[in-house]
Formats: sequence, structure tokens, C-alpha cells
Amino acid sequence: MFKLVTHNKNKYEEMKKIISDLEMVSMEYAEIQADTLEEVIDFSLDTLSTVIEGNFIIDDSGLFIDALGGFPGVYSAYVFKTIGNEGILKLMTSESNRRAYFKTVIGIRFNGINYKLVGICHGTISTKESGNNGFGYDPIFVPEGYTKSFAEMSTEEKNKVSHRGKAVRKLAAFLERFA
Amino acid sequence: MFKLVTHNKNKYEEMKKIISDLEMVSMEYAEIQADTLEEVIDFSLDTLSTVIEGNFIIDDSGLFIDALGGFPGVYSAYVFKTIGNEGILKLMTSESNRRAYFKTVIGIRFNGINYKLVGICHGTISTKESGNNGFGYDPIFVPEGYTKSFAEMSTEEKNKVSHRGKAVRKLAAFLERFA
Repeated sequence: MFKLVTHNKNKYEEMKKIISDLEMVSMEYAEIQADTLEEVIDFSLDTLSTVIEGNFIIDDSGLFIDALGGFPGVYSAYVFKTIGNEGILKLMTSESNRRAYFKTVIGIRFNGINYKLVGICHGTISTKESGNNGFGYDPIFVPEGYTKSFAEMSTEEKNKVSHRGKAVRKLAAFLERFA
Repeated sequence: MFKLVTHNKNKYEEMKKIISDLEMVSMEYAEIQADTLEEVIDFSLDTLSTVIEGNFIIDDSGLFIDALGGFPGVYSAYVFKTIGNEGILKLMTSESNRRAYFKTVIGIRFNGINYKLVGICHGTISTKESGNNGFGYDPIFVPEGYTKSFAEMSTEEKNKVSHRGKAVRKLAAFLERFA
């Protein structure tokens, strides 16, 4: 039995499809300010292990834009809440370098040890928003090998190539092998 | 005797002028992601109190821009490091609302209790960078009642009106009264 620590019911429903023996622990917890998602996850795994009994899972994601020095990165949620996609597009004045990647890090506390699984999706920032599916930066992110944004894809199509999809499949393989 | 926990020697030298009985403890510590500086400071005071003996002081500052929903706020240092003043100016497409404020929160752990002292400086975001003094967002911030930026002021002139100056003077009064 694993616990997923999140206050996002959608994440739980999505992961439950892959890991049937999953319980949702709905709580907010402190995340640290750091340059990498891995540091954030490690800190949270350590602090949560003092209040949650048994094995549990957390995750964190971010959008990292080359021409902006990795911005918004670890603070993607905050940046989306304040300046949004409109703000990102204003910052993207370079026509030539629009490379970016989405990254998810899943943290697992398993028998007292921290494990981290990473999923990355490379792509580019488009010049305008398009599509109504997904959430967050999906309308301005075009994954490599596609000509449409994440927000123009169905959930199934997006999961095949997305950072989150990749990380969740690694999680399923991890659990099948070890748990 | 108070300890100032920071890895910034300039901050220490500045505060030492006001509080002669001050020792610098040079260490990095985890700050949490939060919507307010106050939450960040409270968390750090609590966690640092488990590793630092006796009374100590920490501080954190941010720039909060009205038209950007408070961005860059608590993450001002990270945002400066990535998109910088150039990025902020690109985001400021509103000619009419350029209001912003700088805020410093000083956290004091004194005999096992947390105290927070706040200094705020209201002003506007200019349309271009000017001046070479100061650091960070100083070249684009014009304090209320002035027509020049923080970066065009001498340190003494800036300290009279700045968020940090105000908070540090409150700290001096606090220590004189209670410590």
C-alpha cells in the first residue's frame, strides 16, 4: 500500500489508474526554494517522513525555458498564477531560441529510503496560445515532433509523450519491480 | 549577543553599524515556497532554532508589482537571476499602473519566541534602467516622492527611505527596548 500525498484529486485519479493499491493523503506541505526539482522533492520526502507512516509518493513539475535561464523552473506554479502564459510570451522575444522542456520528478519514500524518478518532455514555446485542453502552460508548449500544443491534444495523446506520463510509467515499473 | 544568520557579508556589515553586539553565522538554510515573506521567515526561524543556540536574526526581501499580481514577490532573487530587469520591463506593458513596493521582513528568534519586523517602500517601476549604485532591481525602482531610481541614490540617501532601512531601524528600536 502506497500513499500519494497531494491536495490535487486529479493527480490521484490519474495515478490510481496505474497503481490500484493507492491511498490519497490530502495535505499541503512545505516545499523549499531551490534551483532544482530534485532538491525540492528530497527535502519534502525527508520532512514528510516524520509525519507520515509507511511508504508514500509525492511529485513536482516545472517548465524550463532555455532563453530565460531556466525560468520559470521550480516556481512554475507561482509564475503561472501571477504573470501567466501572456507574461511568458512577452518575455520570449527571441525568435530563434524557443527551446524549453517540461520536467516531472516523482519522489518515493520506500522502506525509509528516498527514490526519485524523472520524466522530461522537450519542445518549444509557441508564439501564441492555442488549444483548450490540459492546464497551465499547455497552450504555449509544443512537444518535439508535433506541430500542435499540449492543449490541442487529448489526455491520452498527451500522456504518451508528456513529462508526467513518462515519470508515472517509470513509477509503475518501479513498483512492479520492488514493491 | 545576537547572531545574524546569513551568507551575505554586506548585510552583516550594514547591520553591525546599528547593532554593535552582533556575530555573523555564515550558513545557507532552506527557505520554503510561500505566498508571503512572513511565512518564509517564520518557517526558517523555527527550523534554524533547532540548530542554532541562543538568539538570532534573519531577513528576506522582495519586490511586489501590482500589475503583475505581486510578481516577482517572494521569488525576487530567483527571478532576477533568470530574467532580470530586462525581463521585468518587458512584462510591464501597462503604462498606467506601474505601482510596486519593496518589502523586507526581519525575523528575530528571541528567548524562544518569533518576532517579525516589516519595512515597506512604495514606488513605481520606471520604463528603463538607470543608475549604477545598489543591486538587483534598484535601477528600475523609483521610490515615492522621488524622480530617480534607487540605483541613482547614495547608500545613505537610499537607506533613509528604503524597505531595508526602515526594517533595520525597527530592529534597532526593538533591541534597545527588549534585549
